[in-house]
Amino acid sequence: MKFSPLSVVSLGFVTVSVGAFVPKSQNVVDTKLYSGVERNENFAKLSGGYLFPEIGRRRNAYLEDNPEMADKIISLGIGDTTKPIPEHILSGLVEGAKKLGTTEGYSGYGAEQGQALLREKIAKVLYNDLIDPSEVFVSDGAKCDIMRVQQVFGSKVTSAVQDPSYPVYVDTSVMMGQTGSQDESTMQYDNIVYMPCTPENGFFPDYASLPRADVVYLCSPNNPTGAAATKEQLTEIVNICKERGSILVFDAAYAPFIRSEGVPKSIFEIEGAKDVAMEVNSFSKYAGFTGVRLGWTVVPSNLKFKDGSLVRDDFNRVMTTAFNGASNIVQSGGLACLDPEGQKEISNLIDYYLENAKILRETMEGLGFTVHGGTDAPYVFVELSESMGGSWDAFSMILEKCQVVTIPGAGFGPGGEGFLRLSAFAPRDSVIEACKRLSEELK
Amino acid sequence: MKFSPLSVVSLGFVTVSVGAFVPKSQNVVDTKLYSGVERNENFAKLSGGYLFPEIGRRRNAYLEDNPEMADKIISLGIGDTTKPIPEHILSGLVEGAKKLGTTEGYSGYGAEQGQALLREKIAKVLYNDLIDPSEVFVSDGAKCDIMRVQQVFGSKVTSAVQDPSYPVYVDTSVMMGQTGSQDESTMQYDNIVYMPCTPENGFFPDYASLPRADVVYLCSPNNPTGAAATKEQLTEIVNICKERGSILVFDAAYAPFIRSEGVPKSIFEIEGAKDVAMEVNSFSKYAGFTGVRLGWTVVPSNLKFKDGSLVRDDFNRVMTTAFNGASNIVQSGGLACLDPEGQKEISNLIDYYLENAKILRETMEGLGFTVHGGTDAPYVFVELSESMGGSWDAFSMILEKCQVVTIPGAGFGPGGEGFLRLSAFAPRDSVIEACKRLSEELK
Repeated sequence: MKFSPLSVVSLGFVTVSVGAFVPKSQNVVDTKLYSGVERNENFAKLSGGYLFPEIGRRRNAYLEDNPEMADKIISLGIGDTTKPIPEHILSGLVEGAKKLGTTEGYSGYGAEQGQALLREKIAKVLYNDLIDPSEVFVSDGAKCDIMRVQQVFGSKVTSAVQDPSYPVYVDTSVMMGQTGSQDESTMQYDNIVYMPCTPENGFFPDYASLPRADVVYLCSPNNPTGAAATKEQLTEIVNICKERGSILVFDAAYAPFIRSEGVPKSIFEIEGAKDVAMEVNSFSKYAGFTGVRLGWTVVPSNLKFKDGSLVRDDFNRVMTTAFNGASNIVQSGGLACLDPEGQKEISNLIDYYLENAKILRETMEGLGFTVHGGTDAPYVFVELSESMGGSWDAFSMILEKCQVVTIPGAGFGPGGEGFLRLSAFAPRDSVIEACKRLSEELK
Repeated sequence: MKFSPLSVVSLGFVTVSVGAFVPKSQNVVDTKLYSGVERNENFAKLSGGYLFPEIGRRRNAYLEDNPEMADKIISLGIGDTTKPIPEHILSGLVEGAKKLGTTEGYSGYGAEQGQALLREKIAKVLYNDLIDPSEVFVSDGAKCDIMRVQQVFGSKVTSAVQDPSYPVYVDTSVMMGQTGSQDESTMQYDNIVYMPCTPENGFFPDYASLPRADVVYLCSPNNPTGAAATKEQLTEIVNICKERGSILVFDAAYAPFIRSEGVPKSIFEIEGAKDVAMEVNSFSKYAGFTGVRLGWTVVPSNLKFKDGSLVRDDFNRVMTTAFNGASNIVQSGGLACLDPEGQKEISNLIDYYLENAKILRETMEGLGFTVHGGTDAPYVFVELSESMGGSWDAFSMILEKCQVVTIPGAGFGPGGEGFLRLSAFAPRDSVIEACKRLSEELK
């Protein structure tokens, strides 16, 4: 099955080629070695790498300089689940794999929109049939779906984002060509509406007072601030979007962490939302599926472009043309998540991470910091004191002094400066140890 | 874990809303019910749906009219694997799932580029280390990767495609905004270079005689024609691409079906290819992973844009920002594929489908048709006689008379008119039965 026996491969070619391609050190650029294809200008606008790999890079650089600290590192950085997958859900995954070994259980290409039964169960169990299964598109995750949403909207729309926010909204807008360049002083991209979310406005954007955008990205419970929007807040933004003809893209990936009474877990709990909103969601934080990869997006059949055509039809075109369905094995796991036993297991997982969040929150409060989030969300958003410098400085200091990886607020946009995000996705003993070190260093 | 108890959900709202949204029958369009967001004009350019769902739609429409035929339908249409996953590879998938239930075996987010070990094994086992693991990006499949490749190139490049070809190249070019509208008489999109592939040129494009394009898509063994390009042909196109400064996107998803001596299984067997080509590939047809979802793309570090920047860096930005890695369970299956036992199992699977192809090929030849492909490829491409009408007519006739689903050549672009694609991905007894019916009807 090898692509080429070694005798066919001209190793000489490889050596020559590699040798020929180190022009930089010689300061000679042989343009014949470059293609004639212009680089997509939108990629040149993106400053630096995507946030989370950059965090990993800085951690690794620290460990290269301090290899003896490797065992001490605790990550409260990227929101990555750490608890094993519980029994019933796991059995869904294992059985989903096993049956592919039998003639009757084998399946190939499935519907690109997801298995019919999974779409039905999502609509029923998670939305009480408030939405129709035909409005549910199963995918390999919310991050991937945000790019697909951007593909649907294309390069000519304007987007509004919370500031700070999950960096994928802005980065994909830039990649799609919706934006201008990044302003070096404000760190904002031209042609994106940044909606400040601050302690003063309860981290909820005042969209009405800002320029109109075609597409408004809103995440609740919020990453990174941990703020969970109230029914009144969501009703307000749904109404404003309707008035202004904006489409709301609601990111509900952290919905299962909501435990407070009356706080909506879906935008579709809000009257009129089906006319203006789509919802991106994920099993990642819900069931420990960050590595397993399963998500979904709801595009209501009411949601229409200016010409009356359905947004759902164009989203369906992206899903069928540029995606091939979530893994059949993984979808079996998704079905198990939605059984009563799976729901109980998920509830226990969420309890665990919320207890971590409580510990982090109380520790930081005990140290005198003003702390946000961490009750209906797995993220604790800490206001830094001015003496700590910028948020990247605080990140570096805590990494070096405590060997704890966090995320600087500035990584989530200019509005995140002055804050630090702590993730509750970690083993309990790591959270306790991290809190001990933070308490010693920051007291 | 429900998002909202039923008491919170205003069922009255749902009813009212649904009632309010049937303006069409009343011939009244209330624009207040539409958003103010313009539809992405590129989607309006796409005629009809994506090919393969359209085939399914026509089959289902036939079955609605003829429900008694449901048990008789045989699909030689979409190239969907049907053999169960063999034992060793299956154990890779099952163990990949099982270990997520243990603290030490659990994993969350992996590298977006794929697990290091899998990247190494792909480079070693499939490419004899002709490429470096850092040039391999593991994904959820070739179709998805083609869209990511398009995202890297953006809207301002020109693309060239084989005609006929796998429809994803053209459809994603249109979605990205690289093209004009579709000409109603030629069925070609403006600003795409269609490279005719006919029996006369051995289904290999004469790119040198056609206008230059920035990006050239080439698939070998070819879908749909079944032609496997020779070393001389590939050397020629690599050289022309280098001369013209084009980037070659080589789709090698059917490489394991090559059994003829000296036919390259990878573009990187061609001298100089690392300067001009990237390669998209997949485990789908290789190991029966069409529903499991695993693929990869090789972007050589030699491949550069006009400004000298690395294509690999921008591809990496797409992978990290708009993708989150292939499922960890699925990657475990990929590792098992690359073990010696897995390679043997794959060889047996390919034998099985190639024998199907031989049966199809010989049957159609016996009926007097000129037949292409089906030796180093799982597809048999049949030249239709003029008396059969267009290829969509032949598709319908064979569906109605034989209850056999095929794919009309015209579905792969205007150059496919006059041909019919038969897929060898089917159970043996189905292939034999289909051949019996075709022999009776077409004799």
